[in-house]
This record gives sequence, C-alpha cells and structure tokens, in this order.
Amino acid sequence: MSEKSKKISSTLKIASVLLLIFTVGGIGGVYFDQQVLPIIRTNKFLSRIGFLARTAENVTVINKTEQITIKEDDSINEVASQASNAVANIVSVSKSKDSISKSIKTTDQSGTGVVVTNDGVLVTYRSAIIEKDATYNVFLFNGNNYEAKLIGIDEFTNLAFLKIDASNLTAISFGDSSEVRPGKKIVAIGNSFGEYQNRYAAGLLSNINKTFNLAGKTVASSEKLEGVFENDFNNNQKEYIGGPVIGYSGNMLGIIGMIVIDSKEKYFQIPSNAVQASLDRILSSGLSSRAYLGAYYVSITKEYAIANKLKHDRGALIYSPSGKQGLALIAGSPAEISGLRMGDIITTVGGRSVNLDNSLSHLVGQYKKGDSTEIILDRSGEEIKIQVTF
Amino acid sequence: MSEKSKKISSTLKIASVLLLIFTVGGIGGVYFDQQVLPIIRTNKFLSRIGFLARTAENVTVINKTEQITIKEDDSINEVASQASNAVANIVSVSKSKDSISKSIKTTDQSGTGVVVTNDGVLVTYRSAIIEKDATYNVFLFNGNNYEAKLIGIDEFTNLAFLKIDASNLTAISFGDSSEVRPGKKIVAIGNSFGEYQNRYAAGLLSNINKTFNLAGKTVASSEKLEGVFENDFNNNQKEYIGGPVIGYSGNMLGIIGMIVIDSKEKYFQIPSNAVQASLDRILSSGLSSRAYLGAYYVSITKEYAIANKLKHDRGALIYSPSGKQGLALIAGSPAEISGLRMGDIITTVGGRSVNLDNSLSHLVGQYKKGDSTEIILDRSGEEIKIQVTF
Amino acid sequence: MSEKSKKISSTLKIASVLLLIFTVGGIGGVYFDQQVLPIIRTNKFLSRIGFLARTAENVTVINKTEQITIKEDDSINEVASQASNAVANIVSVSKSKDSISKSIKTTDQSGTGVVVTNDGVLVTYRSAIIEKDATYNVFLFNGNNYEAKLIGIDEFTNLAFLKIDASNLTAISFGDSSEVRPGKKIVAIGNSFGEYQNRYAAGLLSNINKTFNLAGKTVASSEKLEGVFENDFNNNQKEYIGGPVIGYSGNMLGIIGMIVIDSKEKYFQIPSNAVQASLDRILSSGLSSRAYLGAYYVSITKEYAIANKLKHDRGALIYSPSGKQGLALIAGSPAEISGLRMGDIITTVGGRSVNLDNSLSHLVGQYKKGDSTEIILDRSGEEIKIQVTF
Repeated sequence: MSEKSKKISSTLKIASVLLLIFTVGGIGGVYFDQQVLPIIRTNKFLSRIGFLARTAENVTVINKTEQITIKEDDSINEVASQASNAVANIVSVSKSKDSISKSIKTTDQSGTGVVVTNDGVLVTYRSAIIEKDATYNVFLFNGNNYEAKLIGIDEFTNLAFLKIDASNLTAISFGDSSEVRPGKKIVAIGNSFGEYQNRYAAGLLSNINKTFNLAGKTVASSEKLEGVFENDFNNNQKEYIGGPVIGYSGNMLGIIGMIVIDSKEKYFQIPSNAVQASLDRILSSGLSSRAYLGAYYVSITKEYAIANKLKHDRGALIYSPSGKQGLALIAGSPAEISGLRMGDIITTVGGRSVNLDNSLSHLVGQYKKGDSTEIILDRSGEEIKIQVTF
Repeated sequence: MSEKSKKISSTLKIASVLLLIFTVGGIGGVYFDQQVLPIIRTNKFLSRIGFLARTAENVTVINKTEQITIKEDDSINEVASQASNAVANIVSVSKSKDSISKSIKTTDQSGTGVVVTNDGVLVTYRSAIIEKDATYNVFLFNGNNYEAKLIGIDEFTNLAFLKIDASNLTAISFGDSSEVRPGKKIVAIGNSFGEYQNRYAAGLLSNINKTFNLAGKTVASSEKLEGVFENDFNNNQKEYIGGPVIGYSGNMLGIIGMIVIDSKEKYFQIPSNAVQASLDRILSSGLSSRAYLGAYYVSITKEYAIANKLKHDRGALIYSPSGKQGLALIAGSPAEISGLRMGDIITTVGGRSVNLDNSLSHLVGQYKKGDSTEIILDRSGEEIKIQVTF
Repeated sequence: MSEKSKKISSTLKIASVLLLIFTVGGIGGVYFDQQVLPIIRTNKFLSRIGFLARTAENVTVINKTEQITIKEDDSINEVASQASNAVANIVSVSKSKDSISKSIKTTDQSGTGVVVTNDGVLVTYRSAIIEKDATYNVFLFNGNNYEAKLIGIDEFTNLAFLKIDASNLTAISFGDSSEVRPGKKIVAIGNSFGEYQNRYAAGLLSNINKTFNLAGKTVASSEKLEGVFENDFNNNQKEYIGGPVIGYSGNMLGIIGMIVIDSKEKYFQIPSNAVQASLDRILSSGLSSRAYLGAYYVSITKEYAIANKLKHDRGALIYSPSGKQGLALIAGSPAEISGLRMGDIITTVGGRSVNLDNSLSHLVGQYKKGDSTEIILDRSGEEIKIQVTF
C-alpha cells in the first residue's frame, strides 16, 4: 500500500467513523431531545440544574434579549392583509333642493364596499350608501379615487352594486359559505372614514340563523333572502356595514348588513354564496330577471311543529300573523294565481325539498321570471301538486 | 512514559474521543432533529411508528398532564367539541285558556340546557324555559328528542332542573370554579333554535363580581347566590341563557344567567361549583331543605369600609337602604327571631369568617333547614354571639 | 476463545461503542440544539447559511408550506401580568352637606388608575373619580393602601393625575402609540371593585378615529385632543374607564375614556403618546402652561372636501354649524385677535402641515402659553400668513 493510498484509506476511515458518530449520535440527540429531556424537565430536582432548566423554559425562545416569544400573532393584519386590499371606501354625495328656500342642500355619507371583479365591480350593503340622486366616489387601498356608478340594488339580498372604470384591480376571493360551521374565527373589515382607512373587528361566526329573513318580520317573504350568519362581535357594527367578513384563510364568507327591528339595530352577514348568486345575476340576466312568487310563509322548525301540532317538521307554511289570506298571498301574484292558500305547507319546489337549508325563498331564487315549475304542498293532510309560473 | 502519565494520556485520549463524539454527534443530533425528523413525520407510514409519532405530535408539549398545547385553530370547534355534545335545546310549550274568548292560546319558547348526569338530568337557567303549566321537549346533539319533566327550580341559584328518560348520555364535565382567575379564555355554547343547533361566542372570563347577588338589588339577600362570573362578550347573550361557558380544556366553568336591572339586561355566569352544589341538593335532600335566614345585607369591601368609616373591612352588614329594620330582617324569620338587628356586622357563621369569597348567603347555603349554628357579630363595637336555627 | 464468543464479544463491543456514541452524541445533540444553535442563529453572518437559517425560522414548523403550529394560551394573564401590577384601584369619597336637612351625605366611587412613575404619580380618566371636594384612596396590587392627592386634571386630554407618597413602585411601561396600526390585539385592564382586583377584556385595537375630539361635538376644539383609538370590545366598558389598554408585549398603548354623546356612552382610548405628553407637562411646566387658541374647526377629510367642493383635502376649516362667526372663534381669544375668520382653512402651524395625523389641536398642543408662531391659511383661495400669540 502506498503512502498516498494509506492516507486516503485513513481519511476514509476517519470519515466513516465521523459519519457513524454523526448518524448514531444524531439519532441519540433526537432521542434525548424528544424523550429524555421532557422527563428530566418534569423532575423537580433535576430541573433546577441551570442548563436543563433553561432548555425547559420555552422551546421557541431563540434570543432572549431580542425576541419575545409569543404563541399568537399580536395583530390580525396577516390574516386580513390580502382581503384588505379589496376593501374600498364609498362616499355618496347627494344634493337636494329645499322646496321652500330653493337652496341646495348637500348630504354625504361614507360606507364600506368590496371589489368583487378585477374590472371594477364593487358590492356593498344598501344602507352603506345614499340610494337616490347621489354621486359616488370610491377610494381604493392604493389611494386611487374613482367616480362610480350605481348599477343595481338587489331587493332579494339588499346588496348594492357599483362600477368604477378601472382594470386589474385586486378583487376579494370568495369562500364557500355552505361549508361554514358555527365557531369559525372571522375578521370583519370596515372602511368608512371618508377616505381609505381600514378598521377591523374579530371574533366568531357564532351561528347560522336559518330563519332570519331580510324582511325582518315574523313571517318570511318569498322575495327576500332567508338564512344569514351571525357573529359574536360588539353590538354596534355600523362602521362595517357593506364590508366583508373573512375567515383565517382570507376568503370572504359574507357581507355585513343591518336591519332595524323594533327600533333596534340587528346586524348579520349575507352568506358569500348569496353574494355570488346576486353578483352572477346582475352580470348576466340582470336583477329584473328574478322569479316572483308573492307569498309570505314560516319556515317550519321542530319547535314550531311541536307547538303547533304539525305533521311536518320541515316545509314552508303559508301564513299571515293576522290570519288574513290577503296578507299571506299578494293579490295578483303567481302564488295567488296558482291557487296557493293560507295554511298550505309547501314541501317541494321543482322537485327539491323545502327545509332549513333550502328555504322557500332560496328555492324560488333559483328561477327566472317566466320560469314554470311544480310545487307540492300539504293542504289539511292531503298532498296537492300545483303548477306555478313565476 | 510513567504509569501516571500513561493514565493521564489515556484519560485525555478517552476525553478527546468523548468530546469528538459529543461534538460530531451533537451536530448530527441537530441535523436529524431539524431536518430529517420533519420529513419522516410527514411520511405516512413512518409516522405510525410509536417513538417518531410521539415526537411528531407537538414539539412544544413538555408535560402532557399539565400543559395543553393547541394550535391557533381557525375555529373554536375543537375546544368546544366534547362539551357541545352535552348541550341541549329545551323547547317549552304552554297552553293557556283565554278567560274571555275561551280559546286556547299556545306559547312556545326555546332555550339552552346542559346534560349534567348520564341518566338524564339537565340544568338550565330559569328564564330559558316557561316555568308554569308547560310541557318540555329536549333535543340532544344526536338528533334524539325526548319529553322532559321539570324537577325543580332552585331559588338560590335561579337554576332549573329537568329530567328526561334516557341513559348513557354525554354529560358535561364540571370544572372547579374556585380555581378560576380573571383573564381565562372561555367559550359560551348556546342552543336555542328550536331544534338541535349549537351557537358559540368566545372571549374572556373578565371578572369575578364578588358582590353581585341574584336578587339584583343594592342589598344582598341571605337566600340568593352572591358572587358570579362576568365575561367580556357582546352585551346581548340572550341566546346563550342556560348554556355553559367552558374553559379551553372543555370543562364547564359556569351557566349563563340574566337579570333585568333598571330595565337593562345584565348577563353573568353562575359558577360551576354553585351549579354542582345546587345539583347535589336536588339529587339528595331536595331543594326545600335549604336553610333560611331571612336577612338583607351588604358585603363589606374596603371601599365601603372607608366611605362609611367602619372598623371592619370584611363581614356582612345587616342593612336596608330605607333604613327600616323591618326591610332588613324579614318578620318571623330565623334572623329576626335570633335577635339580629339592622347595623349588625356579621363576622363569622359557624366558625367560618364572612368575607368576599365566603359571603353570608354562601355560608348560610351550606346548611339545611333546621340546622343550628352560632353567628358572631359586631354591634356598635361590641362582639356578640347569637345562636340561630335556620 | 471460540469463534462464536469472539463474535459475541465483538458484537457487544460494537454495541457498546454505538451505545456510547448514542448517549454522548445524544447529549451533545441536546446541547447543540438548545445552547449552540440559538447563538449561531443570532449571528448575522452564520445565520445566512441555509441549513442554520432554516432551523432558526421556527422550531415548531413541521411542514412549511402547509402548517404553522403556534400555541395559544388559555388565559391572557401572561400577556397582562407585568402591566397588571401597575394598575390600581382609586376610591373617591366625597362628603356634602345637604342644604336643607344640614345632614352630611357621603358619596363614594371606585375607579381604575395606572401608576406612571416609580415615585407615585397615577393617571386616570376624569370620570373615574369624583373631581370635587373628595378624598382619594389608592389600592395597589400588593394590597397596600395609600391616601392620594389630586394634582391636576388636563382639560386637553381629560386625564386626571394623582400622587401617593410612595417610592420604588411598579410603573407601567409606555408603548409608542404612533406606531400602532388597526388590527393590533390588545387587552384592557380595569380595577374598580373598591379594593385591589383586576378585570380583563381582550380584542382588537379596531380603528384610529382621527377626527374624534374629546369635546364630543361635530366641530373640534383647538383646546381638546382630536384623534383617539377605538376597540372592538363590548359596548359597555364602564368598569375599565381610567385603565390601560396594553399590547401583547405588555406596553400601554392608551387609557380608556368615555364621553356621553346624544345620551349614548362612547368609549375610546387616549393614545399613549398623548398620555405621555400630558404627564410631561404636569411634571414640568404645569397644566396651566398649555397654549390657547380658541377656535372651532373641522379636520378636512377627502369625503368632506368632495362633498363641500373644497380645493384642499387636508387642513382645519374654521367652522360653526350655526354659521355664526362668534361660535367658531371665541371672543377675545388669540384666534380672534390674530384675525382668523370662519371659513379659513388653516394649512400649516409654525411650519408644520395640518393633516389627519397632525390636527390643529395637536399642533397647538405643542406650544406653551405666550408662545408666538405663524399660521398659514387659505381664505377664499388666497394664501394668508398670520402671526398668533397663544
């Protein structure tokens, strides 16, 4: 063996030994770190020894003097950062002539809106803007300011849509609201300062209120969304109306709305899928294409069925609190024309069951004006099929 | 080479080898710990191997029995999952005959309750149900629906107890409310939709309000719980009345109640230990066995002592805001019979000191009707001992 | 020695060596992992090396692309522990003689305060105490009770300052409120029980309300703080008035205050930098040294500029809702004397631009009584410079 090959052999040998030590010692290191240390740490006597005690304090402490190790972010900004850029401030300005003094009076209002298409469509809740005789200005996150046009208000969802002349905008990404379960952590974003400036509130999506309808009455209307999200935020969410709530992945789960019931403000979120459907309709066939039934009803729950001794614990009971047929079915409406009566329990619409996830108004909302379908109902225990043209 | 230097040399050699192993193996340990383990952990097959699996569970778990390490989930469902199954929906239906029209009027109400024993006892707060002439239906998490019987309402805690005919139920696990400190994160669970469907709110157990009494007045009653938990939730917790608040370990820390004070709704939680005591009483000697004193009092705080120049900063001052003795001590009550007077400061009951953690009503609540004990009080600076039979 | 026993011996030898390496290398692994790595990580040069840098990012990252594992404490106590010791309970007791009955009436109130200097200065919000003819007692976290003196109320910030005769106290540490962005997680600490006992609320610092002024009116006053923090807590924060909100690092970001507007309670936080400035003034030149301008104004936002067709979208518009000059400028005030007029838009004060972060009142607040400076304004499109002596 030459001196050289000896040297190589020896180097290889040393390298082998080092590799062996590296590997076996390495596995030992994992074992001690993961298995032995925890036991030592919980031993009161041993845990007093400096080195071991220090290792036990907190696994994530990297530099004690510089870095405070916390387990939670100290801000929701990371969660909200992407969605924030799609949130806008909408300023409505209306001028009205005073009928007596003939002077011009200016009223202005600032509300929150959300960019929903890259080419400039924004959605907001109707009470966030001045609906009539107003001009609109939109402030985006980058400071840009645009004049906007009101392109429609959907009576079904109370959503208002505006359009600005811009392209390549940051649009919000829609989450699937049908996947949402109560208890989900959410962040609300508002922007109603009169120029771009976001505000945030955080908490839980508390509840899916399946029988809350946007008419805000004890009976639901076939022409109003039924089923909203509720959160556990502060009672006053005025500054967030028209703004989105997002999940921790940054997707929009709903738009914040409000209705005054018995002179109290009641806040809720319109689920993102209803926002999407509303948007799709305005961008395709238009809002005037919505099907019209003209009935008032109660979505039956098990409680309602027990209290009122109904045979069905699901379905839509045609109803008026006053007991007057004329208040349950609008005169001349498809509902009245097709022969619906107060007390009927509608169980299916076009083959789809009426239940708490698919309310009557939701099922009617799938159709267009002029569409025709079959409704099955229970009238005093008898199953009846009727044909209705919306 | 001497024997000694040989020994030193050998020791040095061994030390060198050990140091080499320590260093090289050490670096290997870091490498395996930081680089190799994560890859192994994400490998489905390997991750089933005990030791590796255990290391993968959570790096920050140091002592499993003492420290619960959770991810900041995007939902509180994991925290609430177990307790949720013990939360029920209670539907009360009452029928009353209208005295004029002779027609039957149906009233129904839906509230939240909690299963507290496996054999079907539920607890709720009294205002979550219709107390009189009502029938009750309970919906459990598994969709099962039971008729229920009201087995008692505890005037001391305002808790109502119902019983359903079932066994092997999921009962809530009780936490120890005496261990709770303000600042603890809690989740409230409500279920008042009229069929099974939980809702959630989250926040802090804010405060232990030691002088809040369920009579809701400025003076406390010896027959009403004094000392409740307060949270930092939304002011409106109506939908959660009768439901539990749980800690992050899933244990129940209290039941949500409400009292109307000056026409404002005031929400609070009845501490779990008071719920447990109430439950124990109804299951053993019955609610009618509660001791009765018949006194109104103020639990003395340091502020109260300073403002009113009292010598004692602890104790129960027999008191009526009107200054009338007859309103401080109920006529014919054990308090009056035993000779208590307005202005007395009760310092001990049966040898136990009266203080903010052991209020007069709490101490009286330890006794049964007919029990006899000694009360020590300060009357105008003089210590007096009296015997009272509850 | 047989071949077999040789083999066993050799196997044992190898096993022993492996075990030795496993153990020693293992301990080395722990040492390097826990002790050496942190030092390397904080070394800027070494930390750039891929493998080390990757290990430094986060010990608990298992799969970077998919899963961030963080701990969530089940209580905010760790966050609040240090600041909590600087929070005090202030009890005010006032005695007044009834003019008719000549009897002495005692009124007491308990509020929250914060220790801001080690030698006994506390800050609180004015409505947390009885301002007139009262004596004060302060309860500290360690149970100590001190008589206190009211040393001043700052009309600019509504903060009240008290002094107790003590030293080496735990003072709160001030955060820099100018660094705060909406969305930051905060904890409020209250202590208003009538003896030492903290309460907590948690949520977000929601918004910087740049045009909210402590006069609580539609027009701002040059002698009142404009610009406060808002949170997303429960609407009722009464028990926290005078207490601090802290960030997750434990630094105070503001003091909770309240103003009644249209008979509704409006809560906000006075930013820590304004608290610091107020404290500095009382400790140095005294509160009476504050500059006085005597003007009412509107801080112009972009919305305001659009609605009112102003050329400026920043600045302070001298204004009165009634349109009367005398209500916009106080008679005999420096503002009036220097020739300011209603409708003027002040754009700079002493060379500093008036904008939403530097409001007119904030800029005036930098001066002392008697100081003189130049104000630049726009009067009907013309730039005018005037000299004002505060």
